[in-house]
Amino acid sequence: MLFSQEKEQKIKQLSAHALRQIIRRNEFNDNTSGYAQGKVQGNIVILPQDWAGDFLQFCQMNPKPCPLIGMSTMPGDFLLNDLGQDIDIRTDVPGYRLFEYGQLKHEINDVKALWRDDLVTFVLGCSFSFEESLIADGIEIRNISENKNVPMYSTNIACKTAGRFSGDTVVSMRPMLAKDAIRAIQICSRFPSVHGAPIHFGDPSLIGINDINTPDYGDRVTIKTNEIPVFWACGVTPQLALTKSKPPFCLTHSPGKMLVTDINNSTLAIL
Amino acid sequence: MLFSQEKEQKIKQLSAHALRQIIRRNEFNDNTSGYAQGKVQGNIVILPQDWAGDFLQFCQMNPKPCPLIGMSTMPGDFLLNDLGQDIDIRTDVPGYRLFEYGQLKHEINDVKALWRDDLVTFVLGCSFSFEESLIADGIEIRNISENKNVPMYSTNIACKTAGRFSGDTVVSMRPMLAKDAIRAIQICSRFPSVHGAPIHFGDPSLIGINDINTPDYGDRVTIKTNEIPVFWACGVTPQLALTKSKPPFCLTHSPGKMLVTDINNSTLAIL
Repeated sequence: MLFSQEKEQKIKQLSAHALRQIIRRNEFNDNTSGYAQGKVQGNIVILPQDWAGDFLQFCQMNPKPCPLIGMSTMPGDFLLNDLGQDIDIRTDVPGYRLFEYGQLKHEINDVKALWRDDLVTFVLGCSFSFEESLIADGIEIRNISENKNVPMYSTNIACKTAGRFSGDTVVSMRPMLAKDAIRAIQICSRFPSVHGAPIHFGDPSLIGINDINTPDYGDRVTIKTNEIPVFWACGVTPQLALTKSKPPFCLTHSPGKMLVTDINNSTLAIL
Repeated sequence: MLFSQEKEQKIKQLSAHALRQIIRRNEFNDNTSGYAQGKVQGNIVILPQDWAGDFLQFCQMNPKPCPLIGMSTMPGDFLLNDLGQDIDIRTDVPGYRLFEYGQLKHEINDVKALWRDDLVTFVLGCSFSFEESLIADGIEIRNISENKNVPMYSTNIACKTAGRFSGDTVVSMRPMLAKDAIRAIQICSRFPSVHGAPIHFGDPSLIGINDINTPDYGDRVTIKTNEIPVFWACGVTPQLALTKSKPPFCLTHSPGKMLVTDINNSTLAIL
């Protein structure tokens, strides 16, 4: 869906709640980056109760790639009032993906027709929150200044296995000068629920990345002279684990089309 | 002065106050690293009142290399009770240096004979405090494991000028794996009064260091494969500024022979 610049600007001014209302009416199905600024956006994973216990444990054992910021209070419940006024997870995300046995089956705009009484919703923090804090501190985020998706890479850093869930960590990469990387480590350490501090910087081969210019997901960004690649644990990690563990039914958000909550990013800061 | 291993071990068990007593009696004139563990040790600068104002401003404008943790309450006062029971700055440091017009004149064991009514004492935090926290976290500190002085380098990072004081920043270097460097940045950020977070890592030439294997002060240490040099602002910085600004009279501690205070390192943590 393409908007006129004027309409896009108007939608960017909407509150998180108002934005969710037009998403619910299928009047907005775009990426949510840059909308409802200052509010936490979340990755979504919806699983049958039978698989939810293992996934919850996977998140708790791998908090850096899978930082859990909310979940439904009981199976079948599609309201997430703790995260925002009147959130209905069946309709309030701009795009969903249906996976069956680890295979992507459909991209859809709402999941009302697919809803079941045994579904458990997980909401995981996303990097939009810490990028906002870094930009506010004057640090350039290359994927934003180049208007690209952040480059992401599979690594050889194994997640801790939880029941049927296992896999390697996926990382996102932002190139920076060392002095900005030091500041970014300080700022991101305050936000453990949105991936926290970087997990690596410098030589990509040390974490199993062969070619920094060929990301496994997202786009390539420019790495300037004197800049160092800085790597954060990434929310694509649980999607990789889901592909590997092959639950018969799973719903996720479509990449970039996040759940916009009413929670202020600043409230995620631990200090 | 060389002690038997047995005597050295006994002295290492002494409280900070008891250690200062034997220093005062000239029964201990050694480096203080490893003694009175858990207590803050400080760099000493003593200047005539006429020069003290400029130096105080230099410290306040350059807190990373010159983190002020205490000073005498009035000119001529040689007691520093805020930093420890009964501290007499004229006698309680194991070794002093006398500088005249920026030139080293003598190394002496006490400065009672040189004391004047116009002298102002400054105590600056030192890296021993954060090294202790890093080791407690399981990070290897190469200069300690190799039993060497930390390597230090002049850089091209200018300090802010304050009155007659100016100069470039001196840095200390500790090689680490990236994951340990990230953790070290987190830990040291909690300790701004002992140099705080590193100011650079990686390529030494970016801060004007031509040869990492030839430190300007201290000893060379091993940098292992996959390790990155991590650079902290260093307490030698004010000594370099003193050499440059050439006050007619200045006393400092001798390198490695610090004032041992009664303050717990942990109390310096800001969070």
